[in-house]
Amino acid sequence: MTARLQETVSAIGPLDEAAMARARARQDELTKPRGSLGRLEEIAVQVAGVTGCDRPCLRRKAVIVMAGDHGVVAEGVSAYPSEVTPQMVLNFLRGGAAINVLARHVGARVVVVDVGVASDIPPQPGLIVKKVAYGTANLRREPAMSREQAVEAIEAGIEVLEQELERGLDIVATGDMGIGNTTPSAAIAAAVTGLPPARVTGRGTGVDDRGLALKIQVIEDALSRHCPDPRDGLDVLAKVGGLEIGGIAGVILAAAAHRVPVVVDGFISAAGAAIAAVLAPQARQYMICGHKSVEVGHRALLSFLQLEPLMDLDLRLGEGTGACLGLSLVEAACKILDEMATFSSAGVSRQA
Amino acid sequence: MTARLQETVSAIGPLDEAAMARARARQDELTKPRGSLGRLEEIAVQVAGVTGCDRPCLRRKAVIVMAGDHGVVAEGVSAYPSEVTPQMVLNFLRGGAAINVLARHVGARVVVVDVGVASDIPPQPGLIVKKVAYGTANLRREPAMSREQAVEAIEAGIEVLEQELERGLDIVATGDMGIGNTTPSAAIAAAVTGLPPARVTGRGTGVDDRGLALKIQVIEDALSRHCPDPRDGLDVLAKVGGLEIGGIAGVILAAAAHRVPVVVDGFISAAGAAIAAVLAPQARQYMICGHKSVEVGHRALLSFLQLEPLMDLDLRLGEGTGACLGLSLVEAACKILDEMATFSSAGVSRQA
Repeated sequence: MTARLQETVSAIGPLDEAAMARARARQDELTKPRGSLGRLEEIAVQVAGVTGCDRPCLRRKAVIVMAGDHGVVAEGVSAYPSEVTPQMVLNFLRGGAAINVLARHVGARVVVVDVGVASDIPPQPGLIVKKVAYGTANLRREPAMSREQAVEAIEAGIEVLEQELERGLDIVATGDMGIGNTTPSAAIAAAVTGLPPARVTGRGTGVDDRGLALKIQVIEDALSRHCPDPRDGLDVLAKVGGLEIGGIAGVILAAAAHRVPVVVDGFISAAGAAIAAVLAPQARQYMICGHKSVEVGHRALLSFLQLEPLMDLDLRLGEGTGACLGLSLVEAACKILDEMATFSSAGVSRQA
Repeated sequence: MTARLQETVSAIGPLDEAAMARARARQDELTKPRGSLGRLEEIAVQVAGVTGCDRPCLRRKAVIVMAGDHGVVAEGVSAYPSEVTPQMVLNFLRGGAAINVLARHVGARVVVVDVGVASDIPPQPGLIVKKVAYGTANLRREPAMSREQAVEAIEAGIEVLEQELERGLDIVATGDMGIGNTTPSAAIAAAVTGLPPARVTGRGTGVDDRGLALKIQVIEDALSRHCPDPRDGLDVLAKVGGLEIGGIAGVILAAAAHRVPVVVDGFISAAGAAIAAVLAPQARQYMICGHKSVEVGHRALLSFLQLEPLMDLDLRLGEGTGACLGLSLVEAACKILDEMATFSSAGVSRQA
């Protein structure tokens, strides 16, 4: 590990139990039966622990979308061609993608990062270029990237998060764009959980039965060829991961280090979260799972991360779409804690 | 049935299939894999069918909170005293309750209606008084209300919805306030589904095991004494219902008649929705279920209504809190349909 990554990992401490206790005590003073707002109450208490503030206010919100390409697309594992990755990056920058619509809806800014798109995207306002490589290598044949590139990808995520912190950031959501990236995500899921690839591999953007069988075979080949060490997050990321997945891991680690709550999107983001959790187990406590994806491997990763999704809307788009909707729920949960009247201030009788 | 109620029920037609087909066709042109936004895509198509517009815009939002008291509280079925109903109504009017916080969060107005609070609430700005009675009678001993009062309660809801339409309304959410109202809701659930009361009765705001057993006994007594006819919505509402539950049924019927999508909150609202669905089976298609409540009877009512909840956040507060969060998801779903770029406009390649 380099100094920067090591420093970030070391900065991740436990949640602030005192702030959580104060938040819990306040929840019980608010004009509602105890615990009657369920997950919203829990989430606000978690955010209190993350931020160290017992009435956290989440005004400045961003979704960071990490983009990268995948050499494994050459094996025919995706229903879309790689050229769609830069096309969608341009769509993000013009505001026409699903993530733009949802981010506007919840009042979050969209931050688009090229960590490893296979072509050069013409420089333009809003595009952050942190290109580690022109896509990964084909993980069926060789490691997806070198260990150094894995570190660079994670550090790209750390740098972007820290840049956004300077602009003002109270909560962040992760997102991804990368044609082919359900394959490395499933490979990561299999590597960290020990489950067979067939149990964690889904249809991605929509491959047919033959495509799915091929995808499983590709992942089996990669795992038996490279033998990634499940206790070594950099090894897993380098051998069977993706550059945008590394970037997401970096965003999560830096968010945890700076005590910013992070809403993790679906399957690809959970793969990044798993890498972060292997590198820094305490980072887990800073994560909130936005939604449960249709992708079968997401469940395995959530159980590995011990996260309960906030929503289950049958999404399988990525980009941070589910996390973005999650941002709004987390903000709502914190407003409840901050803005509601108490039994005494409102003159409402308590439970008999 | 009176002329007004009959007129409303008769005005409820089928969804606009042509608008739904146009909305579905547009979904498949947007820059995302087909179907990858799951429930959000389905919901937007449903709203197209409800409104007859293939790119519906849901700007003007309201949550209508119906308040009423329950004579059955004399049996000891609630953890809170009846005086909390008017106290909470005042809390709503001052903006300090959970529903106010969430409505501000999603940009909806809160409309507070006294359909049957047991005391007189001093007149004040924002309070709509449509008081049918000073609470219901104790349904264990006598019918909760007369058939005429059941009609009046429903018509109160119809009137309020039509008044809000005049102010401008694109989507509405239902909410309730009424100490003791999980008891009539469970009685309605048992009556319309035929399930035994023990299967549909929960702890409400938090009764203990003894309180729960008592609640079940009270409902069993009421059902065997009054024998409500499950095919007659007015009979069920009059014998074992509540005034605010009737008001909610009226809001739903009027929303369906005026082709306004209606987000139904948790258990109490679902009881109102069940009354509406018995009176006008087509009304069901205009409903969206905001969330799944902790209350056990909610599941039975959702299956009766054939509705799938959008969220499951372990809420059990009522007031319209879950529906309010649902409003925002429905709005987001319609923005996706309206605002996203198409493959051709964004220059993105289609599936191979």
